[in-house]
Amino acid sequence: MRVITFFKRSCASTNIFGRKNFSNVGFVGLGNMGGHMARNLLKKGYKLTVYDVNEVAVKSLVKAGAQSAENSGKIAVDAEVVVSMLPSNQHVLDCYTGENGILSSVNKNTLLIDSSTIDPSVSQTVAKQAEQSGALFLDSPVSGGVNAASAGTLTFMVGGVKSNFERAKPILEAMGSRIVYCGDVGMGQAAKLCNNMLLGISMIGTAETFNLGKKLGLDPQVLADIINSSSGRCWSSELYNPVPGILPNVPSSNGYKGGFGTSLMAKDLGLAQAAATRMEAPIPLGALAHQIYRTLIANGQFDKDFSVVYEFLKGHR
Amino acid sequence: MRVITFFKRSCASTNIFGRKNFSNVGFVGLGNMGGHMARNLLKKGYKLTVYDVNEVAVKSLVKAGAQSAENSGKIAVDAEVVVSMLPSNQHVLDCYTGENGILSSVNKNTLLIDSSTIDPSVSQTVAKQAEQSGALFLDSPVSGGVNAASAGTLTFMVGGVKSNFERAKPILEAMGSRIVYCGDVGMGQAAKLCNNMLLGISMIGTAETFNLGKKLGLDPQVLADIINSSSGRCWSSELYNPVPGILPNVPSSNGYKGGFGTSLMAKDLGLAQAAATRMEAPIPLGALAHQIYRTLIANGQFDKDFSVVYEFLKGHR
Amino acid sequence: MRVITFFKRSCASTNIFGRKNFSNVGFVGLGNMGGHMARNLLKKGYKLTVYDVNEVAVKSLVKAGAQSAENSGKIAVDAEVVVSMLPSNQHVLDCYTGENGILSSVNKNTLLIDSSTIDPSVSQTVAKQAEQSGALFLDSPVSGGVNAASAGTLTFMVGGVKSNFERAKPILEAMGSRIVYCGDVGMGQAAKLCNNMLLGISMIGTAETFNLGKKLGLDPQVLADIINSSSGRCWSSELYNPVPGILPNVPSSNGYKGGFGTSLMAKDLGLAQAAATRMEAPIPLGALAHQIYRTLIANGQFDKDFSVVYEFLKGHR
Amino acid sequence: MRVITFFKRSCASTNIFGRKNFSNVGFVGLGNMGGHMARNLLKKGYKLTVYDVNEVAVKSLVKAGAQSAENSGKIAVDAEVVVSMLPSNQHVLDCYTGENGILSSVNKNTLLIDSSTIDPSVSQTVAKQAEQSGALFLDSPVSGGVNAASAGTLTFMVGGVKSNFERAKPILEAMGSRIVYCGDVGMGQAAKLCNNMLLGISMIGTAETFNLGKKLGLDPQVLADIINSSSGRCWSSELYNPVPGILPNVPSSNGYKGGFGTSLMAKDLGLAQAAATRMEAPIPLGALAHQIYRTLIANGQFDKDFSVVYEFLKGHR
Repeated sequence: MRVITFFKRSCASTNIFGRKNFSNVGFVGLGNMGGHMARNLLKKGYKLTVYDVNEVAVKSLVKAGAQSAENSGKIAVDAEVVVSMLPSNQHVLDCYTGENGILSSVNKNTLLIDSSTIDPSVSQTVAKQAEQSGALFLDSPVSGGVNAASAGTLTFMVGGVKSNFERAKPILEAMGSRIVYCGDVGMGQAAKLCNNMLLGISMIGTAETFNLGKKLGLDPQVLADIINSSSGRCWSSELYNPVPGILPNVPSSNGYKGGFGTSLMAKDLGLAQAAATRMEAPIPLGALAHQIYRTLIANGQFDKDFSVVYEFLKGHR
Repeated sequence: MRVITFFKRSCASTNIFGRKNFSNVGFVGLGNMGGHMARNLLKKGYKLTVYDVNEVAVKSLVKAGAQSAENSGKIAVDAEVVVSMLPSNQHVLDCYTGENGILSSVNKNTLLIDSSTIDPSVSQTVAKQAEQSGALFLDSPVSGGVNAASAGTLTFMVGGVKSNFERAKPILEAMGSRIVYCGDVGMGQAAKLCNNMLLGISMIGTAETFNLGKKLGLDPQVLADIINSSSGRCWSSELYNPVPGILPNVPSSNGYKGGFGTSLMAKDLGLAQAAATRMEAPIPLGALAHQIYRTLIANGQFDKDFSVVYEFLKGHR
Repeated sequence: MRVITFFKRSCASTNIFGRKNFSNVGFVGLGNMGGHMARNLLKKGYKLTVYDVNEVAVKSLVKAGAQSAENSGKIAVDAEVVVSMLPSNQHVLDCYTGENGILSSVNKNTLLIDSSTIDPSVSQTVAKQAEQSGALFLDSPVSGGVNAASAGTLTFMVGGVKSNFERAKPILEAMGSRIVYCGDVGMGQAAKLCNNMLLGISMIGTAETFNLGKKLGLDPQVLADIINSSSGRCWSSELYNPVPGILPNVPSSNGYKGGFGTSLMAKDLGLAQAAATRMEAPIPLGALAHQIYRTLIANGQFDKDFSVVYEFLKGHR
Repeated sequence: MRVITFFKRSCASTNIFGRKNFSNVGFVGLGNMGGHMARNLLKKGYKLTVYDVNEVAVKSLVKAGAQSAENSGKIAVDAEVVVSMLPSNQHVLDCYTGENGILSSVNKNTLLIDSSTIDPSVSQTVAKQAEQSGALFLDSPVSGGVNAASAGTLTFMVGGVKSNFERAKPILEAMGSRIVYCGDVGMGQAAKLCNNMLLGISMIGTAETFNLGKKLGLDPQVLADIINSSSGRCWSSELYNPVPGILPNVPSSNGYKGGFGTSLMAKDLGLAQAAATRMEAPIPLGALAHQIYRTLIANGQFDKDFSVVYEFLKGHR
């Protein structure tokens, strides 16, 4: 395997004079993830203007030192860079291209960094419209979840023009510990969806395998040892095993609480499915993984970590 | 992950006086795998009596120093240990419990080691009948393929009574480099089928993911770097990538020649499916992986490495 | 479509002199189905000798006029025809080929009719052994369920030599209203498994479709009208609709009680899967239908009609 | 089953004075389907103005008596009713809501009938915008294919306000023989996608079943007779059997030529998948059917009738 170069958090986030590279930063979307990310920017000394429909979330950030704006468009008026963290394709479209959206008042050369997880084609659509306004768009979805957002250790998968990526690195390093360049606009999203689709498949596969093994009489710990030193091993079997008691600090050993929720996995698999449909790429296991998570959620397990699929297949009998 | 203890090939294969622990070894099944395994036993100095329906295979081993017998039963008359390597459930049943089979003439305390990959319940059936004859049965399927069989570096996954396993270790070490104890009789088969089912799933998942990524515009090498340092990684993405050109010495970079054939993968998935049906364990992705390999084989790719599923999903258009 | 000829219940069950064509009938397996079938033979005037491991079931039939025997073998000593109705491959093998089994004491030209639903290859194995004893074997699985067994309106799907089929017709007509010749031995089983696999697939498909339609805003009754007059229609949408309230007298309109249980559907799909694996025939949807029923059963719905899959997909939210 | 009322082609298409109910009709989209539909309107005496990007198609209609317009917007200026027949979501959005689109110049109370097969939510989006312009929108996808379009025997599945539906009936009856009201806007699309999803599932299920049956030794004609009088029957087994030679006038008996192409089935399954993802409705078999058609197309069978899946599963070996 070629070694991937990760850009470590470092003094690169300041220029040679020790100052932040951006004086005014806008931030739209202060939910579970965005709230922590914005807070980390404040901690690193950035001057921040924020917007969210949720006024409580806005007030909390203002208390922490941010300014607030009436809408996304107002944020764009003064910002040199705007970061957004929103829940869906439609939210991103509204935030950027809607009335009073960012593109209605953005300045030339403003850097727009969207960290939402959405369809790559929506990122590409927004990027095209941003370009017409003279702004510079990057898609930059994250992995790592709420804990990493809070600790500032997110991974950012970034798509866009390479020089824009270089310009964005310092501010991303203020929120994350791994900043990965994935290619043209949309490729950040593509990389995230691809990784998470394979993750969803291998988690269900691991759950099936360990449930079958146990029913056949295998000790799950012995099976884990064998698989993890053999060709069946994957991240889910090694580091996030869905069988309670195999690994100490994973959701399966804690009642499937915390972690990466089934609803988020189902959302990402739905985005992967939409992308595959558009590209006419067959994804039989990815499509089925999506349906399994949908069925599991319909049967009540919507607030558990995605490794709970082990329990769904094992059943209650 | 707990560290698994692998038993290294060592002087443990001889007793403290430097002698082989078995003076007469029988070997039934001299095919692609068994032929090499038997040859390695000869090389290590074992006195070998062999049987196969294929006379050419028998002659070749006789030339190498083995004796031959008329049938499996004849082999059992004098052997202290018998190793078998056969292609299917029915072959194993015939070889052990059929007329002129091993159990028709086996001695008390003879060690019977079956290295065929079969249904765990068949191993358990044979073991029960062996016990009635006073013989000691171990299931001991292998992984590693023809190359490892030739080099004597197979992995053996062994099920049976622990003391029988200890007694068998030296002779297994003459043919393999990893000897893993998996539990009671049948658990060697169970472990192998579980591992290979998860392997089949993650290989197809990897193929889907890289095909989708490429169609979305991602550079496969960049995607490999991202996934292999993220939660989507698995053995298939890291060490056996199905996209030509990512890794130098894997079948995908050599026209999908060699390696682990689609027919063997389909066979193992069929055995996993049968075991899951019997245990009433749901294996949605495992079942679909089986069907994908069957469809791929029906469409002509029966003589390629199992990573060729990438080409099947990518298509010819 | 060619018209299929069904053999109606008629005086054909007696010969021209008005007598039953068999004077001594044996019956093995007096469970939910077999008990009713045996009782119908008594009602039609057959002299019956029965066997079951369940003594209560035997006593009940004796009270109704049957004689009892110690084991299957004893039944075969005097019978001109033996009917068996057993729950699994293994039960059939034991009943026919085991110690004290039917074949241990069967007479030449005795007609053996197995109405169990099992693997076609097991029927073929038993038939071959029966032939060696000079007996004549037919596989003859049924459809129609407990109600049809009680009413004597079962459908029999029969495989075996045509002249044996003709000889068996009168006694089958005493228990059923449709007697269908399917071809050589095993073809009765093959036909039943094929039909039920397609039934399982189309039931799940119907359930998915109506759940999706309802979520999209369609009135289920309107959707039923449209589909049932279009290319999507199937027996499950027309005559056994899984949506409560569409049809009056089906399990879905009665809390999914009665009907054809999920466990029986899962069993038949498992048999179809085993047959497909052996024949190397890809059955992607059949395999997935099997897994869906297994998952549904694992999640508690093992005692409902198989149309309950609609509720499983719809969920509780 | 409740009887569905189909509105037969009748004098209802003229008012009581024998005149057409619309004097000016616009038509956008003159492809394989739309060309025939427009021609049928001309034949019935409607005054027609047409538009398509393909100038050859336009000229052909002009030759047949239609007038042409520069763009969709120009058509809307004078039309009392506009019919559109376009290949995708994006085409419909552009045609109605784009620059020079229909809604840019539509009059109050103009009836807009979109017969494209698209996502129900796109129909709903367009309908909402049409309402703001005072126009009246109906979604009205068809079934029946090119032959029915040519013969004027299409089925229209219509969604929208009931009184608009009544108003549209005469013009739809000029192009089709069955006009079905499905409910609110989008429900025509929903009904079509639901029907076609179940059709795709049952076709693949039928193909699997007959391939398995044949490999087990069943005569396909015998199997067809059994299934078609049993619970496994569906439209695909009865009227469109995918096994060559079972039925005389279906694509399978003519080299899988003509009929309903695999690409169109894959498109409809993709739309059903997108709708299911949005509604969070699990469609495991529908999703897999989609992937099977995608895989089949990737392997070269893109220009065949969708029953060719039988050949794909049977394979070339």
